Amino acid sequence: MSRQAPQDMAAERASAEFDITELAHFYAGGEEKYTKLHKAYEFIKQDPELVVQPPRNILEFNRDEIREFTMGQIHRIAQMLISGEHDYEFVYHVAMAANIYNESFSMRFFVHDSLFRNVINMLGNKEQQDQWNEDIDKFRLYGCFAMTELGHSSALRGLETMATFDVNADEFILDSPNITSTKWLIGGLGQTATHAVVIAQTNINGKNVGLNWFVVQVREKGTGKLMPGVVIGDIGSKAGHNGVDNGWMQFRQVRIPRSHLLSKWVSLDRKGNYTPAPNPAVMYATLIPERLSLITVTTQMVSQALTIATRYGVVRRQGNKNQQIIDYQSHYVNLLPPIAFMFLLKSAGADIDKNFQILTSGGKIEDPMVYLNHMGEMHCVSASLKTMSGWYASDILEFVRRSSGGHAYSSYNAIANIIGDWGVMTTGGGDNQILAEQSSRFLLHRLEQKLEFDEFPELKFRPSCQYIADAKRYLEIPQWDVQDISLCSRDPSLIEEALNAILLNSISQKLKKGATHNDVLLEMSRVAQLHCATYILSVNVEKFGAPAPAEGSGFDVSVYSILQQMTILWAFHTLHTFSGEGVREGFLTPQQINDVEGYYMSLNKSLRPQMIGLTDAFGHPDFILKAPIARYDGDIYQPYFETVMTAPNSMGVPPYQEKYIKPLTGRPGKN
Amino acid sequence: MSRQAPQDMAAERASAEFDITELAHFYAGGEEKYTKLHKAYEFIKQDPELVVQPPRNILEFNRDEIREFTMGQIHRIAQMLISGEHDYEFVYHVAMAANIYNESFSMRFFVHDSLFRNVINMLGNKEQQDQWNEDIDKFRLYGCFAMTELGHSSALRGLETMATFDVNADEFILDSPNITSTKWLIGGLGQTATHAVVIAQTNINGKNVGLNWFVVQVREKGTGKLMPGVVIGDIGSKAGHNGVDNGWMQFRQVRIPRSHLLSKWVSLDRKGNYTPAPNPAVMYATLIPERLSLITVTTQMVSQALTIATRYGVVRRQGNKNQQIIDYQSHYVNLLPPIAFMFLLKSAGADIDKNFQILTSGGKIEDPMVYLNHMGEMHCVSASLKTMSGWYASDILEFVRRSSGGHAYSSYNAIANIIGDWGVMTTGGGDNQILAEQSSRFLLHRLEQKLEFDEFPELKFRPSCQYIADAKRYLEIPQWDVQDISLCSRDPSLIEEALNAILLNSISQKLKKGATHNDVLLEMSRVAQLHCATYILSVNVEKFGAPAPAEGSGFDVSVYSILQQMTILWAFHTLHTFSGEGVREGFLTPQQINDVEGYYMSLNKSLRPQMIGLTDAFGHPDFILKAPIARYDGDIYQPYFETVMTAPNSMGVPPYQEKYIKPLTGRPGKN
Repeated sequence: MSRQAPQDMAAERASAEFDITELAHFYAGGEEKYTKLHKAYEFIKQDPELVVQPPRNILEFNRDEIREFTMGQIHRIAQMLISGEHDYEFVYHVAMAANIYNESFSMRFFVHDSLFRNVINMLGNKEQQDQWNEDIDKFRLYGCFAMTELGHSSALRGLETMATFDVNADEFILDSPNITSTKWLIGGLGQTATHAVVIAQTNINGKNVGLNWFVVQVREKGTGKLMPGVVIGDIGSKAGHNGVDNGWMQFRQVRIPRSHLLSKWVSLDRKGNYTPAPNPAVMYATLIPERLSLITVTTQMVSQALTIATRYGVVRRQGNKNQQIIDYQSHYVNLLPPIAFMFLLKSAGADIDKNFQILTSGGKIEDPMVYLNHMGEMHCVSASLKTMSGWYASDILEFVRRSSGGHAYSSYNAIANIIGDWGVMTTGGGDNQILAEQSSRFLLHRLEQKLEFDEFPELKFRPSCQYIADAKRYLEIPQWDVQDISLCSRDPSLIEEALNAILLNSISQKLKKGATHNDVLLEMSRVAQLHCATYILSVNVEKFGAPAPAEGSGFDVSVYSILQQMTILWAFHTLHTFSGEGVREGFLTPQQINDVEGYYMSLNKSLRPQMIGLTDAFGHPDFILKAPIARYDGDIYQPYFETVMTAPNSMGVPPYQEKYIKPLTGRPGKN
Repeated sequence: MSRQAPQDMAAERASAEFDITELAHFYAGGEEKYTKLHKAYEFIKQDPELVVQPPRNILEFNRDEIREFTMGQIHRIAQMLISGEHDYEFVYHVAMAANIYNESFSMRFFVHDSLFRNVINMLGNKEQQDQWNEDIDKFRLYGCFAMTELGHSSALRGLETMATFDVNADEFILDSPNITSTKWLIGGLGQTATHAVVIAQTNINGKNVGLNWFVVQVREKGTGKLMPGVVIGDIGSKAGHNGVDNGWMQFRQVRIPRSHLLSKWVSLDRKGNYTPAPNPAVMYATLIPERLSLITVTTQMVSQALTIATRYGVVRRQGNKNQQIIDYQSHYVNLLPPIAFMFLLKSAGADIDKNFQILTSGGKIEDPMVYLNHMGEMHCVSASLKTMSGWYASDILEFVRRSSGGHAYSSYNAIANIIGDWGVMTTGGGDNQILAEQSSRFLLHRLEQKLEFDEFPELKFRPSCQYIADAKRYLEIPQWDVQDISLCSRDPSLIEEALNAILLNSISQKLKKGATHNDVLLEMSRVAQLHCATYILSVNVEKFGAPAPAEGSGFDVSVYSILQQMTILWAFHTLHTFSGEGVREGFLTPQQINDVEGYYMSLNKSLRPQMIGLTDAFGHPDFILKAPIARYDGDIYQPYFETVMTAPNSMGVPPYQEKYIKPLTGRPGKN
């Protein structure tokens, strides 16, 4: 047995029909990025401030330990950034590596480095940016993002924290009028932040002028003591991310200068004359990049889980014929489409990032009109993406757990930890159901514009709802005309067309005819997910739909070919998943969905031998994965056993033997 | 806000159209059981050995703390049983209450009290039962169940632990030949057990005669020291059940007397003459009750989660109209069918328990022929039930998590804890996928018997596959003939008929025609789930399908009526879930599934006001639920806030301020 497992792993690796290293370069965003990230892995691997050194195990840390370790990582990387000893690019990759190693690092670091900074830059004026940016860069303050309240999350209009302008003192007075207005779940606030950007109702001259963002100092720098009138606590234990100090905060008549009202879009003069934003939506602009960051988080976390399940699946043998468990249909059909999803999402993510740069002129929104014109589309993409990939990832992680049997239940195989950390992704940063509704409403709006007024806005990038431009043609197709499903395996755009038609039928038939908005919420959620899955497909059909790579594209032929197969698999997966919709709309026949299912199954089967190569290309070193059952070399049982043996208090008589066990079993009996 | 929530809760409670207390009696298994359980709740509530007393919080306990507390509960209840001071029935209910309060108690207590005991009684002969039972009753030993090995779980034939008979010494020698043969994940073994029932390959006169069960002493009674040649450790941290000491064990030539070979079905004489069991299946008989216990676990744990989500859903207000979040279609449609499932599962479980008593003559298998004749059916029920309810419950818990937003992420609202504890249910006690295959194979076998030889065995109870007796009729129905779906709401047996037909089409078309067994595994998994969902429906249609309760049935009319509506909802839910199968088989038309979906949605909508009454009837006191967002009185925010404020280390400057924060933020800057 002990020799069998490494041999199985080696054989699987050898069966990859593509250059694994080249695919790993693609997945990392290019060879240069790949090399830098792996240099960073080497750098952190033996550094006790960045990676927990054996025999200690980060998966065994309690809340206090993981809090301190996470802050230690941040401190270390901040010092590297401040000292200037290292190349910035190198430190950036060290931060990426630390972040892949410990998801808590990511969230705790980026509440300052991204969320706080983005609000200053996207909502603050030039002077305010100058005022804050240098201290942010140098970590001379630590920022956090105070939006959610105990009683209010997705519905921002209901927020209760109040900022009242005192014209005489030229100050705002922040106050928490009641318990439900307590700021809640704020990352970095519980133990770290010196400053917060706070969203609050704004009362000027006795009138509520709506929500605004304020910069508020919440702790003394250095000592960490709370500022007068600020009450802060940590919200304690959570299902995951226990390295992040999520906190709560109440204001008791806290005064801040008028200049701390972020004023890129609004203005308030000395006399209390207030000019609101041209469009209230700009006040939430920072939520779009927050959602888009989920692409990175998803590919980082879920690809680790998929690597664990795949590696365990090929070395675990079980059943009457002692076969590799991954060879069971019920196993590979549930793991392969998620693996394809990782590659396609990464690829779509690169495009979306480019579009976001156009939207925001590099993050600073220099041209408000460009921003406002593109924002609906960008919100739809980011919202449907968060819904679809957030929920799909939950399903994937649950399947990874199931497919790794009892060993998934051990904390030391990391799966439970990933699931715990993931949990917040479907509700934090906007509840997925609400986001799905918002994207569907946007699609319905665009479709109505097209059908009623033949309007379809021109954007500076290809929108995800491009298919709506062709809505009339699609809606006139009575039934999918592809009878020989195998054609789709050479031309995935045939499936893309079918999905566009199903989508448009859903939007036009179900969302429009909905008796009341509330009666089509589940339909809206399906539409948003299908929209996003189809968008990811369309981006990749454009890149990998041709029979071979374009000359000069720089693509290795074997890499192009496997990405093309991943695209085709995703096409079938999406059509298979949503085929019920197609049938109900009368667009697909029962024969077609039977054929799609048959083809989907055989496609999965044919790709089964590529799974180790594909997951190797995610490029996660063993110390990042942490799971002994996912060892690169396949030799899993001895390391797993050793990990368990070194767990604290795992051997010997328990401390409560005398108190609770001896009084029972210490009595004489027949045995 | 703070007044709104309790008012909302009171209004919801008032809207129940049935007698909540009467329904609670039904759910508890009768008024007597209800009263006893609630007396037990009163008894444990303020007892620090049975329930963690505020301000300490069990949801904050680390591994060492929950281990000790759980053993303390067991010690306390064992002493109550031993002393004889209390009525046995009362102690039994105290154990039930402790078990609902702390799922770890359940698992750790029942490995001794059920699993170990069942093996002795179902596989040991009369002398062996006499030898062990009294010590089991009196907790003078502590037993565990050693089946799973590090490298082997579902495929028992691959187990490697070896018991070699030494005819000269009249002893067996137990040995673990290699690392993968290490017994693994054994509940109660890590720190507690003095004895284990061990399944091992049996070598007699140099020949492997297959698997047998042995009783092995593993620790000295009283001191807890390991017996010679026995090496035991604890497997450490897990995703859940950290109060259970799951352990590993290796044998180094451990000698036990021949009389410790459990010999109800096999025999071995002094000279080494071995008689095997009449049917090897009897050796795994104890797995059936283990699986059936999942019914209890499911209804206990999942009903708590549903209570939490429902109560939070009615007091949380959010959205543009500040409505109760439970009023969103996406919310109640995902919670109501699971609520119905709890009632129907409980009701089906009572029937299955009765059947199990017939099967095993009260647990001791007095008539082997009755046992062998009924075992296939009972295995099919228990296996498909574990698969279907195990996976469905995972989905339900994930939805409960999503529907409780960010507050589900807090450990203090108990949802994360339930999910962690639940995780093991889909793999422990038989991997769900494997069990699904086994049930489907049984159904296919029965169908072939019927179609080819017109055989259908008569049993002493109505089997779950009764529909196969009518297979020919069902298979001749070309299409479902119900055009007016609303008829089904008065007669759910119409849906039962449709489901039977879909099932039989699936079994006969897809499982039979499967090119190879492996290519229909996913279909087998669907069939097993549909079989079980339909069985649960059929049991309840028989009980609640009539327009009104039978005279003398003792049913309150309002309770009967709501259970009838739950049955109808479950019928629609099952048909809606599996309608895709029906369409692909050509049995349902697109029009029919659209109508089913429409009716299903409106049925959910009409039952929405009953949700608080229904979840109240689960009967969980607040201290059992533990979640402040699920307070019975609806006043959630203040208690939640107080829980968070009393969490350890939740206020003040963190211990690492000087080391990691001050060096950054203590430096002068612009701000």
